Amino acid sequence: MALIVQKYGGTSVGSVERIRAVADKIIESRKQGHQVVVVVSAMSGETDRLLKLARDLAPQPDSREVDVLLSTGEQVTIALLSIALQAKGYPSVSFTGAQVHILTDSAFNKARIIDIDAARVQKALHEGKVVVIAGFQGIDSDGNITTLGRGGSDTTAVAMAAALKATECAIYTDVDGVYTADPRIVPDARRLDRLSYEEMLEMASLGSKVLQIRSVEFANKYKVPVRVLSSFKEGAGTLITDEDEKMEQALISGIAHNRDEAKLTIVGVPDRPGVAYSILGPVAEANIEVDMIVQNVSAEGMTDFTFTVHRNDYDTALKILEKTSEKIGARGVTGDKKIAKLSIVGVGMRSHAGIASKMFKALADEGINIQMISTSEIKVSVVVDEKYLELGVRILHSAFGLDKHGFIEN
Amino acid sequence: MALIVQKYGGTSVGSVERIRAVADKIIESRKQGHQVVVVVSAMSGETDRLLKLARDLAPQPDSREVDVLLSTGEQVTIALLSIALQAKGYPSVSFTGAQVHILTDSAFNKARIIDIDAARVQKALHEGKVVVIAGFQGIDSDGNITTLGRGGSDTTAVAMAAALKATECAIYTDVDGVYTADPRIVPDARRLDRLSYEEMLEMASLGSKVLQIRSVEFANKYKVPVRVLSSFKEGAGTLITDEDEKMEQALISGIAHNRDEAKLTIVGVPDRPGVAYSILGPVAEANIEVDMIVQNVSAEGMTDFTFTVHRNDYDTALKILEKTSEKIGARGVTGDKKIAKLSIVGVGMRSHAGIASKMFKALADEGINIQMISTSEIKVSVVVDEKYLELGVRILHSAFGLDKHGFIEN
Repeated sequence: MALIVQKYGGTSVGSVERIRAVADKIIESRKQGHQVVVVVSAMSGETDRLLKLARDLAPQPDSREVDVLLSTGEQVTIALLSIALQAKGYPSVSFTGAQVHILTDSAFNKARIIDIDAARVQKALHEGKVVVIAGFQGIDSDGNITTLGRGGSDTTAVAMAAALKATECAIYTDVDGVYTADPRIVPDARRLDRLSYEEMLEMASLGSKVLQIRSVEFANKYKVPVRVLSSFKEGAGTLITDEDEKMEQALISGIAHNRDEAKLTIVGVPDRPGVAYSILGPVAEANIEVDMIVQNVSAEGMTDFTFTVHRNDYDTALKILEKTSEKIGARGVTGDKKIAKLSIVGVGMRSHAGIASKMFKALADEGINIQMISTSEIKVSVVVDEKYLELGVRILHSAFGLDKHGFIEN
Repeated sequence: MALIVQKYGGTSVGSVERIRAVADKIIESRKQGHQVVVVVSAMSGETDRLLKLARDLAPQPDSREVDVLLSTGEQVTIALLSIALQAKGYPSVSFTGAQVHILTDSAFNKARIIDIDAARVQKALHEGKVVVIAGFQGIDSDGNITTLGRGGSDTTAVAMAAALKATECAIYTDVDGVYTADPRIVPDARRLDRLSYEEMLEMASLGSKVLQIRSVEFANKYKVPVRVLSSFKEGAGTLITDEDEKMEQALISGIAHNRDEAKLTIVGVPDRPGVAYSILGPVAEANIEVDMIVQNVSAEGMTDFTFTVHRNDYDTALKILEKTSEKIGARGVTGDKKIAKLSIVGVGMRSHAGIASKMFKALADEGINIQMISTSEIKVSVVVDEKYLELGVRILHSAFGLDKHGFIEN
């Protein structure tokens, strides 16, 4: 008998019919003899509906009250799912984040989990119940309701699995696993059977929206095996675990892409100590997250400084940079929203030279100009013109043989 | 500086616009220098929407989970109202029932308040904040979410006023006070300026749906002055307080009516000890509330036993009675859904004889046949054919001079 944490997202519980289908999936696991803890999101559309009400009242509603408001979304789902399970003859009990003491810091709208008291969940499991827990929410040490930010239910599920020492955390979503590339772009992309935490982290941070990045960090920290699978289709999905020897066989596990970013360059910056901070400081203060940062060696005491931000933050960042440019005596500011980021990810590249150059050559052969480059131990990312996104992904997918053999052989 | 608890029902907070209007009303009180604690219901329609979802999943959804579900309704309102107040520049904080420890018993769907920890509310008041509290909900000693049943927000407001030793509990509703009779039936019905707890209790239990009966009991127990007034119209409303000498001047304070009941009679019952219990026991077991009970003296060892229930419970009660009739050897069961209850209420009748006979005469003069009679210290109720409801109310209103002078002179 295994203890399994299952997480169902908003689309999977988007209607009474779908909630019934989720109940059936849970019952399948119960019939196999497993104990099941379920973490659910708000019904799809609900969070947006609630946010709209708040924004009709105030352009920037108080973040504490927004969390009080939004946390009702998951609370509705846990009650309904629990009712559905009971209607099918399976004992069940629901808990809000507060009821199972999902203790977080007090950063409303983007709180981080500090601790979970698993005792109440364990007691209910021992009573033979399916335990249904509200994702996305917790309480701070003063008893205020907090939320973990969009996609936070994944983090709740993984944290709950860690606290309960669960066998596996199954994340049910609208895709049936992690692919070597986006199947909408690369028709012969293959589903990966297995992936390391680090690879999944890179994939997630590079725009594969399968899992929230913090949930993967959490899983990695507590070594919780996470399985991504479909709510709607049968299949074993993709298992995300610690690296093992088998994984070393593959160079590259997948091609990630991202078209949500925009780049900004401040040109002709006097190259003196502290200049990077004076450029990025005001951006960070405006709560704008910066992704890639490139600064090349200077020529004649001047340098260009480029970074990427989310497209939604482009206009704000541009205004900030223009002020900064004047202040530090730079020549000016340029920017481009029409960019795409292409990345190759794989633990195998650690021990293999020449991966990056193979990537650059494949792109060059097709005449795709590389605007920026950034690398980590297990990924190489390039920024190209947005129009090359699909072509670039396909070229890289084929250049690294991802269409031919898997990174784990079945 | 007074401390005032204000309660706004579902219609008063039924839309973003109305929530803004409620915020303005609260701000008016703040500007007068008062501390304000606000208790709110779910936005109108929300409770029914949620219940429908639950009933789509199970005909009789688990009562614990229904409370988890329904309590989200008020939680949405507290957040939105708090956001609205802040948008208008007034510091505010919202609390769920759990957050201010509204401790109840574990009778889900109809829990009773045991205790309230006012400390957190007081702290927020001292910080100069308007405190917005979710009505209708609490937690039991195991931390389960409970609800107080329909109209429970009134009880929350009165209990909160008692716990905080508030100057007054103002219940904002869609009527502008308590009337001598239903103004839709009696056009010259007058708004009462003042009413005793006991009178309000009788009015409420007799179908005047202005206040939930338990909230009046609570107010009476803790001597909380309650004011019923309109969310939409200006006016001082009706103040419900302890009886005083002035009140003694009036005989009758109002005419109440109720068309929600049905009567059932079990005829030819062998008149032996325990027969009343054997009839009402099974009805009570089915959770059907019985209102009036009449059993007349027996003739030839046989008696007839009549009682009234809510019309919704009529069919169930009828089936139960038919079984009972067979079991105890009664002659049979009859019933009537088309009845109306008319009542006269007033503390004055305690010290005045002849009130009941005046009532019976007024009805007889118009040829209205009385089917059942029941009395208490401060009310007399009769059951008549439903078709006489409006006529009966108007006759009694005029017979007791309620159209002419008030029970408190202005």
